[in-house]
Amino acid sequence: MNKLLKEHLVVAQNASGRNMNVPLYRFVGEKPGPKVYIQSSIHGAEVQGNVVIYQLIQWLKTHPICGEVLLVPNCNPVGTNIKAGEYTLGRFDPVNGTNWNRGYFYDEAFIHEFAHSVNDNETTQSIKSRFRQEMQQQLQARLDAVWGMGLAQHLNLKLQQLAFDADYVLDLHNGPVSTRHIYVPEYVKDSARLFNIPHVIFMPNVFSGALDEAMFCPWWLLTDLVTSKRQQPIDFGVEAFTLEMGSQEVISFQDGQYDANSILTFLTAKGCLPHSAMMPENMSRKAVSLSHYKTLYIQQGGIVEYIAKPGDSLKKGEVLARVLNVDNLDSDKATSDILAPCDLVAILHFPSASVLSGTQLYKCFTDYCEL
Amino acid sequence: MNKLLKEHLVVAQNASGRNMNVPLYRFVGEKPGPKVYIQSSIHGAEVQGNVVIYQLIQWLKTHPICGEVLLVPNCNPVGTNIKAGEYTLGRFDPVNGTNWNRGYFYDEAFIHEFAHSVNDNETTQSIKSRFRQEMQQQLQARLDAVWGMGLAQHLNLKLQQLAFDADYVLDLHNGPVSTRHIYVPEYVKDSARLFNIPHVIFMPNVFSGALDEAMFCPWWLLTDLVTSKRQQPIDFGVEAFTLEMGSQEVISFQDGQYDANSILTFLTAKGCLPHSAMMPENMSRKAVSLSHYKTLYIQQGGIVEYIAKPGDSLKKGEVLARVLNVDNLDSDKATSDILAPCDLVAILHFPSASVLSGTQLYKCFTDYCEL
Amino acid sequence: MNKLLKEHLVVAQNASGRNMNVPLYRFVGEKPGPKVYIQSSIHGAEVQGNVVIYQLIQWLKTHPICGEVLLVPNCNPVGTNIKAGEYTLGRFDPVNGTNWNRGYFYDEAFIHEFAHSVNDNETTQSIKSRFRQEMQQQLQARLDAVWGMGLAQHLNLKLQQLAFDADYVLDLHNGPVSTRHIYVPEYVKDSARLFNIPHVIFMPNVFSGALDEAMFCPWWLLTDLVTSKRQQPIDFGVEAFTLEMGSQEVISFQDGQYDANSILTFLTAKGCLPHSAMMPENMSRKAVSLSHYKTLYIQQGGIVEYIAKPGDSLKKGEVLARVLNVDNLDSDKATSDILAPCDLVAILHFPSASVLSGTQLYKCFTDYCEL
Amino acid sequence: MNKLLKEHLVVAQNASGRNMNVPLYRFVGEKPGPKVYIQSSIHGAEVQGNVVIYQLIQWLKTHPICGEVLLVPNCNPVGTNIKAGEYTLGRFDPVNGTNWNRGYFYDEAFIHEFAHSVNDNETTQSIKSRFRQEMQQQLQARLDAVWGMGLAQHLNLKLQQLAFDADYVLDLHNGPVSTRHIYVPEYVKDSARLFNIPHVIFMPNVFSGALDEAMFCPWWLLTDLVTSKRQQPIDFGVEAFTLEMGSQEVISFQDGQYDANSILTFLTAKGCLPHSAMMPENMSRKAVSLSHYKTLYIQQGGIVEYIAKPGDSLKKGEVLARVLNVDNLDSDKATSDILAPCDLVAILHFPSASVLSGTQLYKCFTDYCEL
Repeated sequence: MNKLLKEHLVVAQNASGRNMNVPLYRFVGEKPGPKVYIQSSIHGAEVQGNVVIYQLIQWLKTHPICGEVLLVPNCNPVGTNIKAGEYTLGRFDPVNGTNWNRGYFYDEAFIHEFAHSVNDNETTQSIKSRFRQEMQQQLQARLDAVWGMGLAQHLNLKLQQLAFDADYVLDLHNGPVSTRHIYVPEYVKDSARLFNIPHVIFMPNVFSGALDEAMFCPWWLLTDLVTSKRQQPIDFGVEAFTLEMGSQEVISFQDGQYDANSILTFLTAKGCLPHSAMMPENMSRKAVSLSHYKTLYIQQGGIVEYIAKPGDSLKKGEVLARVLNVDNLDSDKATSDILAPCDLVAILHFPSASVLSGTQLYKCFTDYCEL
Repeated sequence: MNKLLKEHLVVAQNASGRNMNVPLYRFVGEKPGPKVYIQSSIHGAEVQGNVVIYQLIQWLKTHPICGEVLLVPNCNPVGTNIKAGEYTLGRFDPVNGTNWNRGYFYDEAFIHEFAHSVNDNETTQSIKSRFRQEMQQQLQARLDAVWGMGLAQHLNLKLQQLAFDADYVLDLHNGPVSTRHIYVPEYVKDSARLFNIPHVIFMPNVFSGALDEAMFCPWWLLTDLVTSKRQQPIDFGVEAFTLEMGSQEVISFQDGQYDANSILTFLTAKGCLPHSAMMPENMSRKAVSLSHYKTLYIQQGGIVEYIAKPGDSLKKGEVLARVLNVDNLDSDKATSDILAPCDLVAILHFPSASVLSGTQLYKCFTDYCEL
Repeated sequence: MNKLLKEHLVVAQNASGRNMNVPLYRFVGEKPGPKVYIQSSIHGAEVQGNVVIYQLIQWLKTHPICGEVLLVPNCNPVGTNIKAGEYTLGRFDPVNGTNWNRGYFYDEAFIHEFAHSVNDNETTQSIKSRFRQEMQQQLQARLDAVWGMGLAQHLNLKLQQLAFDADYVLDLHNGPVSTRHIYVPEYVKDSARLFNIPHVIFMPNVFSGALDEAMFCPWWLLTDLVTSKRQQPIDFGVEAFTLEMGSQEVISFQDGQYDANSILTFLTAKGCLPHSAMMPENMSRKAVSLSHYKTLYIQQGGIVEYIAKPGDSLKKGEVLARVLNVDNLDSDKATSDILAPCDLVAILHFPSASVLSGTQLYKCFTDYCEL
Repeated sequence: MNKLLKEHLVVAQNASGRNMNVPLYRFVGEKPGPKVYIQSSIHGAEVQGNVVIYQLIQWLKTHPICGEVLLVPNCNPVGTNIKAGEYTLGRFDPVNGTNWNRGYFYDEAFIHEFAHSVNDNETTQSIKSRFRQEMQQQLQARLDAVWGMGLAQHLNLKLQQLAFDADYVLDLHNGPVSTRHIYVPEYVKDSARLFNIPHVIFMPNVFSGALDEAMFCPWWLLTDLVTSKRQQPIDFGVEAFTLEMGSQEVISFQDGQYDANSILTFLTAKGCLPHSAMMPENMSRKAVSLSHYKTLYIQQGGIVEYIAKPGDSLKKGEVLARVLNVDNLDSDKATSDILAPCDLVAILHFPSASVLSGTQLYKCFTDYCEL
């Protein structure tokens, strides 16, 4: 059966001078195969991924794999433990506001340089192996810098060192109050149908700092450069996704089982699970390009009832939300309605009824299509 | 019809040196009758009461009252506006941790002294009127103190000045994730049946700083003292309640209508609404004494699924919650169950899945009875 | 020489399910003598005490003691690590606002009952020993409660178990922006002169939840009860102090040496340090009763220059602080002065220029005397 | 004399649905001249600029100007009022971590397009006027977007609308614990000597979101494009600076006078103050390019004494800071020293003794020169 290796990786030190670490669960199959990397809770309040990993572990303890699966739950020991009131302030470093999922490494110049070093006869396997090696050196050099680096970036680079060896990378997140959705790079659109996730966002080859981008952008650019150089396509077979599995601040073991199955289905299709026959559900899947995944910012402050629930489809002009203004309770300005600016699907909304002007009220699919 | 007087009361100044005020909506009936005081959102994240007041105002604009109803929504302009991450840090002053609902004034010595001043022939009405007047002087003297007072206490005393004139005081709150419940002083147990609220906590004559106590404790003690002095019962007819109307951080206009009706039902029974025939719902009501309303603190840290939902009845030993420990996902210590220590009704639970040891996990009715 | 025993005491678990512990440094002398307990940083931003303990340890490694000294630096591993912006939110539990230094155990009824059990012939040593034993049972019973207890209270009780065995208890704190001051129970006024601390507050026998009170109140009450019962004085020789050693959020190794020497001077006088000849400094010491240690709350919001520095003496009417109001920069209401309400010594002030109305601006000695 | 026009500009609404506004003090001289824009406290804890503006207003009330001076103190009414503990959480939006000084508008494509529209005969004045007009349209179009924008960005754009008309823009900031320093765009290096500020950072033409960049980058790029097109230099005479005037969280009226004088000296040199003869101080000024203004991140967690004070020059290997580790107080690992990685001037350091690994400990000048 699979071997399970368990370690802890030190990623930070707290103000008491104590190490803060991340648990690593590594399953190694008896047969060779792809490498898989799955992490959860880089945003501290997005905890459901830990349950998904728990369910994956139960499965992996009893079913053989080909290759290797590395599971990293609770991958942000700082962000998971910052309480501000009863909730977890998990999206950013409370000291400086840095988003915990924006400090991964990407250097276009390095990739161009590397592509230059690839000669026409080098095998895909050799390129992959060399690229990973040089990327690891790049990462290590930054981690070793004399002037140091910020906490979030340091955490990100330590995780990226683990992830960059993988062929399939899954970063498990939650939205605020949210329905299931997934970010899929455009070059592997077909993989979107391998998950049981009804809402799909297709990502361009643009790096904004997140883990999935830090995985797919380098391989994507390298693919393009080598393809163009050789005038024939090359495929490294590396894929990376961000899965948003419902709402933050809650866990459900049952939902975790569902999402674990969805991931196992994907891994089955990719040849990681030789004895599994799991097939993706026959379900409606809506997809948008990233530029059509739009944020609606409210332009007034007040107290909000979120009428449209995550997953709801609305026609232009239908009511998304109703806002109460406590200073006008006796007049017809007591309430005002926020309307859908166009046909849309509400994917997620802000988790608190109390909003200042300029709050991200909803994120919505617009100009979406059925997949 | 009723007259509506609208004002704003300054209760604080912010760091920009600007006044922060509270809106007052005062309905004055054409006929005399009791005075009613209703406030909401002293805890800034508990916003549903504002919707209830909105619904009350819609009703009061078109139905005559006897006496006066003073409505004070959003009564804490500081607490309502403190964001820490996406949620509202509304239970306590972020500077010093002071609970916004614990700084009201109560002075047993003053009440004893006042009771002493009551002679045997003084009418109930005269006693009430004198007591209110002297109480207002006590409050004003504190507000005028040369050395000043803390922000929360100052806010509390300004509100208490408004509330102390009333015969019926309702303080509208929400729990974290909560079912409806109400705090009722033991001396007016029967009033519990006048609200459409299925869970009732009976309060002793003990002051802990909250508004309802600051209302009922003085009248209760005065009643006892005068009764004992005269050897015959006296009844001032003053009642005060804290209503917990579901969960914080969300609003619902529909639920607000339900709770407004519940309050109107109470006011109908008290003779404030001459044309109303609203009757309390025929429903099951469970009640406990405050000492049997117990808090379950979790003794470990971890990530929690709240299995028991607010309102659920559990037998001793049934599972309240399941805790995930991310460091033991591969062993049978991955999860552990929190069991009901005795038969209970879960009233509310903590609103975040992430908990440190010593977190208030649940508050529960134990040794409850049907009302 | 002294033996040094080092352990870690688990006091909590974080949301990752990991133990949080406190380091214990226990020096045991070759000769018998009093027991000393010193802790620091129960308020997480008050870190200078850790440096003082560091300096004490350097001394204790090379100088013999009689009895035992237990040093507990960084005694609040939760509070020390809560960042909110660049500063440490260390005074209260960020989840619920509970002050980390208000949850110690004190039960007057238990002490009365215990005093009742003391017979006329029981030796002081036997009473002390029995009282400690029963107190430990009380503490343990609370720690074992089925329904659990809050995080701050649990931490407090674990520390109180360590402290209650000691004859001399020192709780090391810092003020916001502060000069050195010390809280001394009235029954050991003379001990105030044994420290090199220029400002002294004499404490009555009233319990408000802090460690020093949780130490001296029980012994004080027991002393009074037994004395009154026997009609002759008894002295248990237990003393407890809170030392405020300058400002929070900063450390200085040099100041730490000064305060360590001050504590060693006290311990010398108490017979703990047989080879030490340290003598208290000949310095001016000002003292007040607690009721004359007054807080000045500002009654407006704005931006404040703190004119009076900690330690400054002011006459009534002199300027403590100047407030800027940004909305009136062009008029003579641009600035306003906060004046001393009476003759006073400024002991500490708020650490931020930005204040809301109702902020604790200064704490001051009034009606003080030279010691 | 100068006319003083005072208004308030609404920039946001809070959760109570109330407008939050910014005071504008506009001095209009009798004679024409340059336009000056000065704002302060975009970062809410950096309050000293408000005092500087107060002092400037005192001067401008009694001394004639040429042109116009617009003063905008307390320009972030949200950030100024977010308390988290005793300090002000003023650098970023507490909801999402967005830095309040990173959302200004800059669009290179638009500037290229505009440059294209400039013909060879157009006067400098006409280009300036047209560019401002079109820029205002760009800003307004974004403010009018149907889907809205985030709170910080909205605030930034409202301020940018005010600032973009000015010839001289000064953004007043403070560092954490900091000595005076100023950011100066490389194209006006000489202006660095017009302020009484001893540390100067020269900025390249790179936009990172801050106000000064949002002012100088467009003009700088436009200058380059038109100069290159016409093959002869053009000078729009627009300058923008960020002044860091000491430490956050404190104000001093005396220091405010000093910095107001420094600004008046600059404005004198620029012809805004016809009757002023103020001359820059004869002082040592050290300067670096932005790339040599380096951040030292600490690689361990612990409690820190900041040995090097802001303004101190250190040789490579000298001690910047000493770190205490509470778990090793008995060993020689109790303290460790952070050394200067090269010759440097310490400009600012972190304001709290308690640091996690990855904290920005110091910002330093390296490879600096005397100006």
